[in-house]
Amino acid sequence: MILTSEADVTADMVVVHLNDAAVPVVRLDPADLTGGAALSGEYAHGSFHGRLSSGGRLVSVNGLRSIWTRRPGTAAARAAAPSAWLAEEAEQALYGMLRGCDARWMNHPDAARRARYKPWQLRVAQRCGLPVPATLITTFPQAARAFAVRHPDLVVKPVSGTHPQDPPRAVPTSRVPPDADFSAVAFGPTLLQRRIAKRADIRLTAVGDRLLAARKTSEPDGEVDVRFTASDAPWCPVEVPPPVAEGVHAYLREAELSYGAFDFAEDADGMWWFLECNQSGQFGFIEVETGQPISRVIAEWLARPAPGVGAAGGGADAAAP
Amino acid sequence: MILTSEADVTADMVVVHLNDAAVPVVRLDPADLTGGAALSGEYAHGSFHGRLSSGGRLVSVNGLRSIWTRRPGTAAARAAAPSAWLAEEAEQALYGMLRGCDARWMNHPDAARRARYKPWQLRVAQRCGLPVPATLITTFPQAARAFAVRHPDLVVKPVSGTHPQDPPRAVPTSRVPPDADFSAVAFGPTLLQRRIAKRADIRLTAVGDRLLAARKTSEPDGEVDVRFTASDAPWCPVEVPPPVAEGVHAYLREAELSYGAFDFAEDADGMWWFLECNQSGQFGFIEVETGQPISRVIAEWLARPAPGVGAAGGGADAAAP
Repeated sequence: MILTSEADVTADMVVVHLNDAAVPVVRLDPADLTGGAALSGEYAHGSFHGRLSSGGRLVSVNGLRSIWTRRPGTAAARAAAPSAWLAEEAEQALYGMLRGCDARWMNHPDAARRARYKPWQLRVAQRCGLPVPATLITTFPQAARAFAVRHPDLVVKPVSGTHPQDPPRAVPTSRVPPDADFSAVAFGPTLLQRRIAKRADIRLTAVGDRLLAARKTSEPDGEVDVRFTASDAPWCPVEVPPPVAEGVHAYLREAELSYGAFDFAEDADGMWWFLECNQSGQFGFIEVETGQPISRVIAEWLARPAPGVGAAGGGADAAAP
Repeated sequence: MILTSEADVTADMVVVHLNDAAVPVVRLDPADLTGGAALSGEYAHGSFHGRLSSGGRLVSVNGLRSIWTRRPGTAAARAAAPSAWLAEEAEQALYGMLRGCDARWMNHPDAARRARYKPWQLRVAQRCGLPVPATLITTFPQAARAFAVRHPDLVVKPVSGTHPQDPPRAVPTSRVPPDADFSAVAFGPTLLQRRIAKRADIRLTAVGDRLLAARKTSEPDGEVDVRFTASDAPWCPVEVPPPVAEGVHAYLREAELSYGAFDFAEDADGMWWFLECNQSGQFGFIEVETGQPISRVIAEWLARPAPGVGAAGGGADAAAP
């Protein structure tokens, strides 16, 4: 089952592979509750039987092998009479049922939520043996000044990631001038990080146990933030150094993620420095530029049987509720 | 450390016991960031050192034994210039740091969030062997009608719990008349449950491994929802039947909760039927009526050393950042 909106073309890339492999797929946008999508679940005699219907297709919740949380809409957002109350009821009903089933998640909503905390990401990366640039998160101007003395070449970036304006705006990472005034740090947590003099950006896409890395060379003293750089260098496939692979596998285990898009900065010594792991990072542009079969690998992961379900179990098209 | 607002008198009950036992306590309201509360954390050489200051007290994040999430305010809500952006940055900085430390949580934010999904609660209770009244959650009118035929004596309650109006309003559980028209079920998920003809309400407060249960006798055919009933019957301590204790311990393990307020309905045969588990349920009124030492038991749980920390470790009053 894929939880996403109709307009999600990246999901389409994966659905093609699932269709080729004759794996039954149901696509459900929680926003379609209670119009194009419906649900029913009964608890009796110590067991649960749930049914979901979407796009005219009816599936058994217990028969789901896997759930891919892509870009689900707000529950019941397209209902005839949407309201905050209906959204809450529909969200609880749908996810409450799905949370109780045995399907594998890419990614589980709890793991996805936790994975967004950047201070936590840095700590997990450290624990997993991935090199993390010296970083300070502080509201003490004095601590910021002392850090800047020890690390004169710094970048500043948001703690959280995306500015919650409408539409959301990504805040670029930028360099801190040597004579910066840190007194405003007292008014909001500030994340300062030693700048890695990078010769390449690395995007490592992890799908279950499969790691697919791509590399894009940087111009010397070029832009800090690859998202805001116009560069002619292409993304090219690259081997993952074994210690990094080991660290990434450990990170995914600790974070309970089955999908993660890791960003590293490669320095002049070839060291990959952990910058962040985006649990919902896009992969379409990497697949297109590198030819790496990311969508096929995702489809294979999703198609594996559910834990404890034999060849006869799983699949869609169950009986009516 | 207690994450709560200044006005939380229930937390005060626990603080008294912690003070009596000379256990250092720091109380922090995330709303006080970045005024009365401040934070600083540095990641370097594979390790993390964090400091929090609140009410003039400075503590080491690594030295925290336990974190009690009571009634924390929205991060930075009382800042000089509050904004959605500042709230997000402060929330991520504070909880991101705390999520990376080794302290025990009552309750961990992820477990707390998951614990609110009632469909999931019912499934966990079933798996743990607690009796759950036959329940249907559905958007199919036909499924509701069929369920009502099999179970003519029904109650209806919200899937989510609290109506998100301002101020939030608890929606009472109510009986469904035999001739109910279920066509409106198509417009929003509806939770129907076989009514338990109860002779008592049970509130079981679980704190770690300690279970403290209280019982309040019902009038025959009285109100369904004890929260909306004016009753003269007092809450009295009651022994927990061993099978229920076993089920509750299993529930807490699966839900990763260290605190839970369980509501049961006791039927004429003495069977305790699981209704719900509120991970942030109040306990002050039960302690006052029954004399059960809930706040002391919570204080004892919070005061236990952190995992892996010896007698010399833990505690507050660390060095300046």
